[in-house]
Amino acid sequence: MTISKYKKGYRAEWELLHKIYKSGFLAIRSPRSGRIGLPSPDIIAVKNRRLIVIECKSREDGFTVDKDQIGQLKAWKKRAKAMVYIAWRMSRKGWRFIPLEDVIKNRGRIGKKFYEKNGIEFDKIFK
Amino acid sequence: MTISKYKKGYRAEWELLHKIYKSGFLAIRSPRSGRIGLPSPDIIAVKNRRLIVIECKSREDGFTVDKDQIGQLKAWKKRAKAMVYIAWRMSRKGWRFIPLEDVIKNRGRIGKKFYEKNGIEFDKIFK
Repeated sequence: MTISKYKKGYRAEWELLHKIYKSGFLAIRSPRSGRIGLPSPDIIAVKNRRLIVIECKSREDGFTVDKDQIGQLKAWKKRAKAMVYIAWRMSRKGWRFIPLEDVIKNRGRIGKKFYEKNGIEFDKIFK
Repeated sequence: MTISKYKKGYRAEWELLHKIYKSGFLAIRSPRSGRIGLPSPDIIAVKNRRLIVIECKSREDGFTVDKDQIGQLKAWKKRAKAMVYIAWRMSRKGWRFIPLEDVIKNRGRIGKKFYEKNGIEFDKIFK
């Protein structure tokens, strides 16, 4: 990944974090650099004990979430009783949130049609 | 703060994070460098929707938690319905967790006697 793409993804995550705050949730972001072998998702948001866990992807094209990462996210669903989403920010479309269950059913693969069909909009989640 | 003290505090936080994982909680750590104006505590831990928010301090001597930080932690208590603690790792004593309410009552001041009296041990919180 080029540095400019990395920066773009980083900025997009920050914008998402601020948007989450504005919606009345509190949130914490864990930069990838600060993890070291623990199952840490990108963002955790909370309001009134309602816990939302998000793994963020800023990519042009479809992608596959690898098994390790899915395993880590499942742990959050099971142990923390969180709602877990893969958030994809497609160019010119903004973030959409795909429930982990749907991603697992699709064997981790996330493409554009899948995003259109299963991706939930921000306002439907952070309310 | 010297670099070696910073590193020591950093390592201590990592050890705490791993200990939290081992106790069956999931946790996420937000390095101070990755915040920028949002009320982010150091660590959030969750098990079965039980949410614990921790601000970590590794210091030799007593200290005062400033008003801004207390305000941010109060937001987590109120909006996220979290249990909030200031964790102090005193030399040769290990971490103890002081409930935010107690810290507020004491006007943010945390000294050694206060730590002995109000600090809760790890095993009583992460169970």
